[in-house]
Amino acid sequence: MGVVVPIGAARDPAQSLKPLLELVAPDMAGINRLILDKAISDVELIPQLAHHLIDSGGKRLRPMLTIAAAKLVRYEGDSHIRVAAAVEFMHTATLLHDDVVDESDERRGKQAARILWGNQASVLVGDFLLGQAFRMLVEVGSLPVLRILSNAAAVIAEGEVMQLAAAKNLETTEENYLSIIDAKTAALFAGAAESGGAIANRPSEELAALETYGRNLGIAFQLIDDALDYAGDTKNLGKEIGDDFREGKVTLPVILAYRRGTASERNFWSRVITAGDIQPGDLEEAVALMNRYDAIETTIARARIYGDRARDAMAAFDDSAEREALQDVVAFCIDRAY
Amino acid sequence: MGVVVPIGAARDPAQSLKPLLELVAPDMAGINRLILDKAISDVELIPQLAHHLIDSGGKRLRPMLTIAAAKLVRYEGDSHIRVAAAVEFMHTATLLHDDVVDESDERRGKQAARILWGNQASVLVGDFLLGQAFRMLVEVGSLPVLRILSNAAAVIAEGEVMQLAAAKNLETTEENYLSIIDAKTAALFAGAAESGGAIANRPSEELAALETYGRNLGIAFQLIDDALDYAGDTKNLGKEIGDDFREGKVTLPVILAYRRGTASERNFWSRVITAGDIQPGDLEEAVALMNRYDAIETTIARARIYGDRARDAMAAFDDSAEREALQDVVAFCIDRAY
Repeated sequence: MGVVVPIGAARDPAQSLKPLLELVAPDMAGINRLILDKAISDVELIPQLAHHLIDSGGKRLRPMLTIAAAKLVRYEGDSHIRVAAAVEFMHTATLLHDDVVDESDERRGKQAARILWGNQASVLVGDFLLGQAFRMLVEVGSLPVLRILSNAAAVIAEGEVMQLAAAKNLETTEENYLSIIDAKTAALFAGAAESGGAIANRPSEELAALETYGRNLGIAFQLIDDALDYAGDTKNLGKEIGDDFREGKVTLPVILAYRRGTASERNFWSRVITAGDIQPGDLEEAVALMNRYDAIETTIARARIYGDRARDAMAAFDDSAEREALQDVVAFCIDRAY
Repeated sequence: MGVVVPIGAARDPAQSLKPLLELVAPDMAGINRLILDKAISDVELIPQLAHHLIDSGGKRLRPMLTIAAAKLVRYEGDSHIRVAAAVEFMHTATLLHDDVVDESDERRGKQAARILWGNQASVLVGDFLLGQAFRMLVEVGSLPVLRILSNAAAVIAEGEVMQLAAAKNLETTEENYLSIIDAKTAALFAGAAESGGAIANRPSEELAALETYGRNLGIAFQLIDDALDYAGDTKNLGKEIGDDFREGKVTLPVILAYRRGTASERNFWSRVITAGDIQPGDLEEAVALMNRYDAIETTIARARIYGDRARDAMAAFDDSAEREALQDVVAFCIDRAY
């Protein structure tokens, strides 16, 4: 498994993330403090469950985008810290609800919160974190930022419902799939980047550029995530290979292998994805079919296109270390596939 | 069952709600239109599921409080409509998540959404409605209202987690129970009333009075709800008698009957509530024990105290038809018990 042929010069993804990490480092301590602070509640179960996820070493990519965007536009206040923490809380709330919806057992290499504390607590603590996110945004008091991130919250939920409705449906088209990931993943990347500019009251062209950057980066990120679910390495992913397969998720690698396959191969996909009848060896067979039809390679190639768009969106800004760091994140997202 | 001895002059609850209904009628059409409008999504499942609950004839008590409070303070704009619709969406989102957490089969006399569309869709559509609520509030653009209702959202979720943690625990005290209902129910009543004043930029004493009114009304409302779960009439409640009993919820009637009971009666409560081992006749036995120790009557007497506080909080305002309508809601909430 994991037979991905590197296309072009693969770099170490960690190297591509380094400029961003260095750029945001002075602010990330403040964000981490705020995240711990706002996960506090007299209701013991809340910090317990929230910390399980918060401490589990997520990359905090989304809040880093907010910070980097604020720095790119030379924002001078300190509200970007609270906006970034709110973005991370929105993401954490989504993860808690996602794991309930997907019936996932693991998250970031640890048992999912829902396994340890139950689905009920995961739903409610997710609600609490979303409420805290909005509280933080109201404290900041920027209506443009509130508009951007409340839109994102509604759109993310819409995307999750779309994904649920498309589950196990092999007639899902590439366009349907792109609409789903645009909403469920890219909306928060877009909101995270745009709000870093909005907090500084930048002109609408700059906000549009940051939005476009974040949206395309988010689509690229999700495409690679979906490719890695069939071609990745369990240790690096913090989740098991084949999770999407077992859940019957119709992601782009499946869509392509199904559409490019023979009638008997389509019967295979119907059995495993639609009927959910998975036998030993089926995941290997799925990966073999994907390799036969370049489904993973095509998925990565699509991700490159969105990545290029993200990079090109940044042309709205003069060259700077911040711009380069943000453009390098694109390489990070895509090079994870190698 | 349902052996509640009327204390004092019981009025027809519908009569007590009439002044409020008449006061808000001209605005409720706009709220209902907005609610339908904002439940729309290209994702078909969302309006389907949302409408199931929206059309099922809830009283819309919370948005009515917002409208009446705005009218009380002679608010002249039209933003109270959107604030009220957002309050109703917050409530609807909570109901969807509640039913998942409580594993309820019915809601407002119909099958619960989670039975028809599944827990997963109920969680996600709840998230969508909460996102839409914040979107509407951002459109209105009042930071004080956003502050009030984002606080409420976080506190409601905290209350739900507290309730989950206290489930089946007979050592829950009356004080614990009051903290739970203060958060899970009264916070939104308080936010609904206060935001009607906040949208009109009223002075803080008036906002505090509206907050106090709503909070105490909410506590009274929930106390009566919990009494009705053992003493009500299925047809009027839109839910089955004994739902709380079957879910092992430790509400005030249970707390009182348990604390006032003999050792062998406590064994009964441990078996049915803590161990969840419910046999035919146990609900009748529970109601009999409650009657033996005046547990329902005491619960209603407590509700009266909070109801009085709600009414007294309105002394901050001059006498008016609006003030009377709001004070009459207290009688509506309490007289439901008869």
